[in-house]
This record gives sequence, structure tokens and C-alpha cells, in this order.
Amino acid sequence: MESWREKAEIKQKSILAKIPEQWLLPQALCVMPTTPDSPYLNVTTDAFMTEAGLSPRELAITSKTSIPEILASYESQEVSAEEVVTAFCHRAAISHQTTECLAEIRFADAIAEAKAQDEYLRVHKKLHGPLHGIPVSLKDQFRVKGLESAISYIGWLGRFETAETESLITKQIKELGGIIIAKAKSPSNLHRPVMNPHNRLLSPGGSSGGEGALLASRGSVLGMGTDMGGSIRVPSAYNHLFGLKPSSGRFSYRDLASSLGGKPVVPPVPGPMSASLDNVIHLTQSVIGGIDAWRRDPGLVPLPWRAPLLDEVRAEASTPGKGLCFAAFPGTGDDGIMRLHPPVARGVATAVRAARQAGHRVIDWTPPSHMDAAMIYGGLCFPTTYDIDDALKSGGEPMLGAVENMLKPTEKYRPKDMAEYYELFKKMKKYQEDYADYWESTRALTGTGRPVDGIIAPVAATAAVKHNSAYAFSYAIVYNVLDYSILTVPVTFADKNIDVADPQDAPHSPIDEMSWVPYDADIYHGAPVGVQIVGRRFEEEKVLALGEALSSALKAMTYEKYDCRGWRL
Amino acid sequence: MESWREKAEIKQKSILAKIPEQWLLPQALCVMPTTPDSPYLNVTTDAFMTEAGLSPRELAITSKTSIPEILASYESQEVSAEEVVTAFCHRAAISHQTTECLAEIRFADAIAEAKAQDEYLRVHKKLHGPLHGIPVSLKDQFRVKGLESAISYIGWLGRFETAETESLITKQIKELGGIIIAKAKSPSNLHRPVMNPHNRLLSPGGSSGGEGALLASRGSVLGMGTDMGGSIRVPSAYNHLFGLKPSSGRFSYRDLASSLGGKPVVPPVPGPMSASLDNVIHLTQSVIGGIDAWRRDPGLVPLPWRAPLLDEVRAEASTPGKGLCFAAFPGTGDDGIMRLHPPVARGVATAVRAARQAGHRVIDWTPPSHMDAAMIYGGLCFPTTYDIDDALKSGGEPMLGAVENMLKPTEKYRPKDMAEYYELFKKMKKYQEDYADYWESTRALTGTGRPVDGIIAPVAATAAVKHNSAYAFSYAIVYNVLDYSILTVPVTFADKNIDVADPQDAPHSPIDEMSWVPYDADIYHGAPVGVQIVGRRFEEEKVLALGEALSSALKAMTYEKYDCRGWRL
Repeated sequence: MESWREKAEIKQKSILAKIPEQWLLPQALCVMPTTPDSPYLNVTTDAFMTEAGLSPRELAITSKTSIPEILASYESQEVSAEEVVTAFCHRAAISHQTTECLAEIRFADAIAEAKAQDEYLRVHKKLHGPLHGIPVSLKDQFRVKGLESAISYIGWLGRFETAETESLITKQIKELGGIIIAKAKSPSNLHRPVMNPHNRLLSPGGSSGGEGALLASRGSVLGMGTDMGGSIRVPSAYNHLFGLKPSSGRFSYRDLASSLGGKPVVPPVPGPMSASLDNVIHLTQSVIGGIDAWRRDPGLVPLPWRAPLLDEVRAEASTPGKGLCFAAFPGTGDDGIMRLHPPVARGVATAVRAARQAGHRVIDWTPPSHMDAAMIYGGLCFPTTYDIDDALKSGGEPMLGAVENMLKPTEKYRPKDMAEYYELFKKMKKYQEDYADYWESTRALTGTGRPVDGIIAPVAATAAVKHNSAYAFSYAIVYNVLDYSILTVPVTFADKNIDVADPQDAPHSPIDEMSWVPYDADIYHGAPVGVQIVGRRFEEEKVLALGEALSSALKAMTYEKYDCRGWRL
Repeated sequence: MESWREKAEIKQKSILAKIPEQWLLPQALCVMPTTPDSPYLNVTTDAFMTEAGLSPRELAITSKTSIPEILASYESQEVSAEEVVTAFCHRAAISHQTTECLAEIRFADAIAEAKAQDEYLRVHKKLHGPLHGIPVSLKDQFRVKGLESAISYIGWLGRFETAETESLITKQIKELGGIIIAKAKSPSNLHRPVMNPHNRLLSPGGSSGGEGALLASRGSVLGMGTDMGGSIRVPSAYNHLFGLKPSSGRFSYRDLASSLGGKPVVPPVPGPMSASLDNVIHLTQSVIGGIDAWRRDPGLVPLPWRAPLLDEVRAEASTPGKGLCFAAFPGTGDDGIMRLHPPVARGVATAVRAARQAGHRVIDWTPPSHMDAAMIYGGLCFPTTYDIDDALKSGGEPMLGAVENMLKPTEKYRPKDMAEYYELFKKMKKYQEDYADYWESTRALTGTGRPVDGIIAPVAATAAVKHNSAYAFSYAIVYNVLDYSILTVPVTFADKNIDVADPQDAPHSPIDEMSWVPYDADIYHGAPVGVQIVGRRFEEEKVLALGEALSSALKAMTYEKYDCRGWRL
């Protein structure tokens, strides 16, 4: 019997072995950098991709990541699905070798499927579906026929999925014509740490971090992650991506690999991530609009895709004299629990300023205490670790230090018995009602006749953190407790010339102290900064449209640089 | 300090004290009968109501219980809301004195509100809303300003509700123009047992049993109950009523009085009950179609009222050569766990036969074992009794014998620790998926191109049972575990000349043995028998239309009498 370290090493090698030899890179391009002066910190650029062997044609193909545009190029026969999928597989191979992002590779199958799609188009003179020939990647939790779904657990290796065990989302994506090229990692002993391709000194976040790194390198057009405490939103923000965390019941969680089972914790949800907001909208519309998905998963709510919700926001945003009303935390832009790193504070201030410049209002957001939500979350979600323990034990491996560090501070919130556990559920229900009432109460303040349309909030207190640091997650989990629908929108990048540390900065609260990561302008330079636009339960269509409005506002913004307090420089 | 018995007695008297003196009945009409030869067994008849003091005009008014018809009579000024509400209050007073059905009375306020509605109509020349001047009753769990919501607990007496603590459903009904005349009892030490007005030797079922008795006496036009294990469906069947148990998230449970809190058990749901299916449809459409109720209760799903689902079934049911496809348990019509009493077996067979005569198909239903659902339910719902214990202790009262009898057999299913508790949630999710897959698999068998439209199932193994017997609830709870949408449809009445006990009958299973109630043709004579039409999650509109189809089929049925095995006599 191999030790867990040996098993992990074998798995790592088996992933690399699925990359065609001509796509393998020299060691110099792959090795993890150690200082801000190391070469190849940012591995997303055209120059780097060219050095890594991507041809000009492949570079051109993989630079076009809008699904509607790719579909149009198939219909006009400008390019074949085979060529597109091959180019993205090549780029994904580079991405994996430079960031360690992939858990499973199926390039050969993907290219064969692309050929079949080309043949379908030739014969039927129409596309197979709204994802015809689109390269898609999935977080390792999504089960795919022929691949493993070890999701970090060494003890779970060697269980190969069949058509029967495939996740419903996998089936839906295949039925829509999508081509699954790879599955992406979560942090684990099974794999080496994933690097952030924008700055490889940093982590891409978790747990959909591999997916974030792959998409940031443009190694895939569209990915699916899952989020139970920020796991879509944090890697989206850390990698300059759009990411949708839907409410529970709109995307199927059926037959995903998980050590949680059906436990009554805060619900984990799947959702799309992409560099293109159009792609996130396209995927959501295609999957949610799919006929009768709710008949195949009793956990789904039969809410169809609601175009009017999107159209109303678009009309409101584009009509002179009208406009939307956002909300944001007042003052320094934090929630009173976690102090924001300078680039994040500037990111939020920039988004607020952009919205105002575009004619929207932004009012102060002073909701029920996020500390209450953090305590409910800690108590409800972490008694479940005995299952994680079981899965770790099955492979004889220890818990990751970063995970242990994240779980440890919450120990005191864990319920001692069923009565305390039930009490937490009561508190959660009350918190949800109080937050809903607060939101509704803003109707009197917005000037639009509606309550606040969406909240502009930090995703985490930090931009992408150094490797092996746990991220501070109060900004994410409150909205898991509320089961709200949220879109992450990329805003800016950390800039050592603007985002200067305040020597007087100190943790805001005991929780802040526990996960406090000091800001270092040199190391964080280039780290992406995003914000989350928060909508209420089941407002997916609305937050997608709010994301369009905010993105347009950011693009149209009169460019001025602001420091972390929102002051003009 | 009074003992709990004294406190209960004081409460009983305070209810009676709210009945105007001229409506009080002689003791002879009120006393609980003891044998099938006792007088006044059935207190629903016109003759009895006349003897109890209802005037011919009041009798005529209270015989018209269709909301659309009542609204039309207001608009045509044929009658005033004051007169209608007064007549129903009088009838409710008779109902309470003969069945002990009410927990709270607000006749005086109701009549004053009716006068205000009349004035509104006179001034504005239009109705105040879709429930304008309609007398409505509520199970005691629904909080109403100015009333208590002790819901059976002596320790909870004396807490009077305010506008702030009112249940959202109460507010919705008031906003729609409805007039709340009374709140109805659940079984408790606080109150004497409620009697079934069709046969006062029998119970009206629980826990919305007071509501069932009131509606069966036509003391109200429409009532709201709640259902977590059959508590709407069982009293609906026992009282010859239509009752809708919706899926969780369509009717608001916000701010209902409950000893459950927000615990992650099988979800309790509110739903309407009435002698008229039109009323159940009218109420559902009005409440679900209400603007933005989901903004006021984050537990609601923003699914609007979906008329097309109703219309499709209506079209399918009325088109010659088409038709619906129902399913029913094969053989003797039971689920293999609980043997059916003869009147119930005949009721199901009658419904099946009526559906077939109307041109619909009925195929065999052999789903995943209901025993599995019973074990999941027992384990998930009954660890919660410590909260019931607390509430009982606060009043110094013991647990009701019938409730103790119902809970005791489930003790062995209770989880010993959190790990076992979590395991039950996993099993529940798996059971829901297996049942959904089974349902979907019937697509190949129905001949309609659709899977089975609805299941025709018993509601309980017995018709209304003798006082202080626990009902056998396996037929109800399986669909709480599945969170399905269900309509109860009245079918027939127990008939001692047809429904003859089989001397060889014996319990089917250990569970059956625990709650086995021997059939007695003489005692059960006249007890109502209903069936439940089961739809999948969130198919409320569909099951309402299926109920219309089955009711029409029953009315149109060529009248032949069948015994309990479906054989022609």
C-alpha cells in the first residue's frame, strides 16, 4: 500500500500524462515564484501564452470567449468546433502547468465530441443546442462519466463515474451541446496549491479556485463552481471573473460529489463563472430555461427563466431621468467586522462612484448585524466536519492547515446538542425575516418607488491572498445564510502605487483578528478586485441585469484614480 | 394560582361567553352522545340547524357557501355582508356548542367589519377585494390581532396578539377583504374533545380538526389549516371537505404560533379547507397571486398563480378521446403498511371507478416503500418533542394520551446523535429523488405522453375514528416527506349496510398493529370518506384541476354500490 503522499503523487502525474507531449512546458515556466521579482508572475498575457507555445491562430481563437460570438462563428463556418475546442484544450494545458488548476482532463474525448458536433451542423444545418461546441470546465464536484470525482479526498480516488452517476448539471450541459474539457481543483492534500494566474505569488481562492485560475488564463470559456460560503464568489473576485451564486433550487445540486450529503446546513449551490457576463447569462438562461429540469431533481423550484426581470432593469438603467438604486456599507465601506484591505476598499468605492456617475443612486446599507449571521453559519455548518474527518481518514491523510485554521475559530459556536442546534435554525429563520424586512424598509429611501435594487458589497476583506492563508469570509457567508442571489463583478486590480497600507490599520473585531492577513502592497500588486452585487432570494435574472448596468458604468467611468478611502488622488 | 385544569375551564367558559345569549343552546343539544342510538348524532342537517334556532333566512344564507356566488349577491345588493357574516356567526355558534370546535371567537368584531365592507361597497361601487365580506375561520396557529394563539398550550394563555405579531396570512386575508370570525381548536388539554358533526361519536381528526368540524357544520365559508403530517388532509377527509396541502413556499408560514420554530424538520405548511372546491381555488389564487407576498416572507418562492397549469388539465379532461391518467395502489388499494377499513377501501375503489367511467386511465402505483418514508419521518420529526414538553411544562399540564400513543411507537426511530440525525436527512434526499424518478418513469405507461397526472390514494387507513384514537398516518406523512402538493376530495360516507367488517382482517405490519383501530360498522356509520389526489412538488394548480375532474367524475358516475373490495353488490 502506498502512503497518502505517494497516492497523491501518482494522481498528480496521471493528470499531466493526459496532456499531449507537444503541449508540455519547460520547467522554468511552471515553477512557483517566490518573490515579487520572480519571472512569470502574471501568466495570463498574450506574450506569455505565445512564449508557452500557443500559435497566433490559437491565441486569436482563445481570445474570443463570448459564447454568442463563438456560436455565430460556427454557423458562418468561420471556424470549426474541433479547432476551437482544441485551442482551448491547449490553453488549458498551459494554464494547468503554470497554475496547477486541473483535477481531471478529458481533452481527447472533448476533441472527438467537437468533431461530432461539426458533423451534426454539417448534416442538420443547425446547431445542436445553445452550448453547441462550447468548451466548458467544471469544478471537480460535478460528476462526469469516465472521470473520478475525488474532490480533494485521497480515499475517494479510483471511483470512476458512469452515465448513471453523472451529475444532472453535467447531463444538462451535454444535452445543450456543451463540451466538457476538464474538471478543476479545490484546495487539498491530493494536489499541490493552485496559483493565481494574475499573480502567482497569490492563491486563486477557494473552493472553486482551480476553476477561477483556469478561467482567468482563458483555458475555458465557461466554468461551473459551487458556493456554500463564498466558493464561487471569492475565486471569481480573486480572478477578475463574473460569477453567479444563485439561490438554492434554481441550479441542480443532484448527484454532485460531496461529503455533506443531504444535511440541513446552509444550502450549497452550483453556479456559472466566466470572464464574460454574456456567458454567465447565456448559461443561466439555457440551463434554467431547460424543459422540466425540476422533474429530474425534486430539489429544484419550477421557476422558468424570467426575461422580464432582466428587461425591467435594462429599461430602468437606460432611461434618462430614471435609474437604479444600489446600496453600500457607509463610511469606510466595511461591515464593522472585517476591515478591508486598501485595494478592496478602493474597489468598492470605485464601483459606487461608477454607479453614481452613470445616474444611479447609492444609499447607505445598515442591515441586521453580519456578526449574527457569522455565528449562525459557524454553528450550523461546522458540526458537519465529522464527515470531512471520515473522508480524510479513508485516505489516511491529515486536514489541510488552511482548512483547520478556518474551522478552529468557529469551534466555540458549535452546538453542544440537538436543542442548541435547533435553536440555531430558529435564529436563522428570524435573521432571514429581519433582513427581508430591513430590505423592504428601504422602499421609502430610494426615490425609485422600489426598495434597493441591489447591494454593492466587498466579496472578502482582501484581494487574492498569499498561499496558505485562509480568507476572511464574513462578507460571503451572510448571503449563504440568507440564500440570496448574487453576481460577482470584476472592478480593478491592486496597485502598489495607489493602495498604500495604513500603518494604523488593525483588526476590527475578534473574528477579524483570527483571520487577519496583513496587507503588503508589493506582494498584492496586480491582484484582481471585484465586488458582489447582492439581490434577494430568487432574483438571479435581476442581479445579472444589475451586473450589466454596473459593468457599463465602470467602462463609461471618467477615469480618475482613487485611493482606498475613495479620495481622488 | 389555578391548576391547569382550572385554567382550561376558565378558557372554555370565556369562549362560550363570547356567544350572544340568544344563540345559546339547551344542554340536550350539546351533550356528547355515547352510543349509535343517541339522539343528535349528525348535527349538520337543515332540520337540526332549524331546531337549534337558525331562521329560514339564515339557513338559506348559510347554505350558499360558494365565494363567487356570495360576491355576486353582494354586488347585486341581494344581501349585505353584515347579514351574511351574522348568519355564519350564528351557525358557527351552534357548531361550537354541538362540536366544541372553536378556540377563539370574534363575532362582534367580524360583524362590525362586515358593516364597514358594506359601506365601502356603497361608497366605491366596487368590492374591496376578492374576499370582500367573506366569513373566514383560521386554525388557532394563525395569529390574529386581539386574540390569543395558545394552540393547545395552557402555558401560552394570556398572550394577546398585536398588529405586529399577526401572521402574514392573516394580514393577507384581511387585505383581500376577508372577515375572520373565529379560530378553531386542535386537540389539547385546554379544550374538551372536538366532535365530528357528521357523527358525534367520532373525532373530526387533527390537528386542524376544529376547523374541519366548523366547516362541516357550515359555520364558516372557508378555513385555513396547517399540515405537517396530514393535519389538513385528515380532517378534510373526516369531514367531507376539500383541503389543499401545498408544497412548502407557496403559502406563508411567517409568524404562525408554533412550538417548532424554524427547525429543519419536514416543513409544516398552511392551506385552505372548504366544502366547496371553488372556494379552495379562489382563496389559493387570491393569496398566491397577491403582489409580492414573497418580499414579506423570505420563506416564500416567487411562483405566481399559474392559470395555464389548471387550464391544461381542464382541456385534457374535457376533450373526447383524450383524458387524464391517474394512479392508485394495486390490489386491495393499500400501501402494504396500513390495512384500509372497509369504507375507505370502498372510497378509493369508487374514486378509481368514477375516473375510469369518465374516460380517464388509472394505472397501478408501486412506488418506493412508504415504510422508508415513515422511518425518515419518525426520526426527523419526533426528536423535536422536547419543545412540546417545554410548552406543556409551562402550563403544568400532561401530554394528551392520544398524542403520547402516536409518538411512543416512533421512539425507536429517533436519532441518538447528530450523526444519525444527519444520516436521516441524506436518506430523505435520496427518497425524494427515488420517488421523483419513479414518477417520471411512468411516462412510458400512461398513454398520455406525460407521466401520471396524479395519484388517487387513501388519506388514512380509517374514516373518522372514535374519540381518543390516534389515526394511522402512513398515507399522509409520506407526502410531507416529499413536500408534494395534494388536494383532498370527498367521495362517500361509511354505510353499515355495505361496509361490512371482514372477520379475518388483521394488521398488515408492526406499525399497523401499533395504531390498529378495529372497524365497527355501527359506530362508523355516516363517517365521511375522502381520497387525496397527490401531485408533485409545486403542482398546486394542477391538483386543484385534477380535483375538479375527479369531482365531476364522481357526480356523473352511474350510481352503483360497491362493497369495500370494489365488487358490485
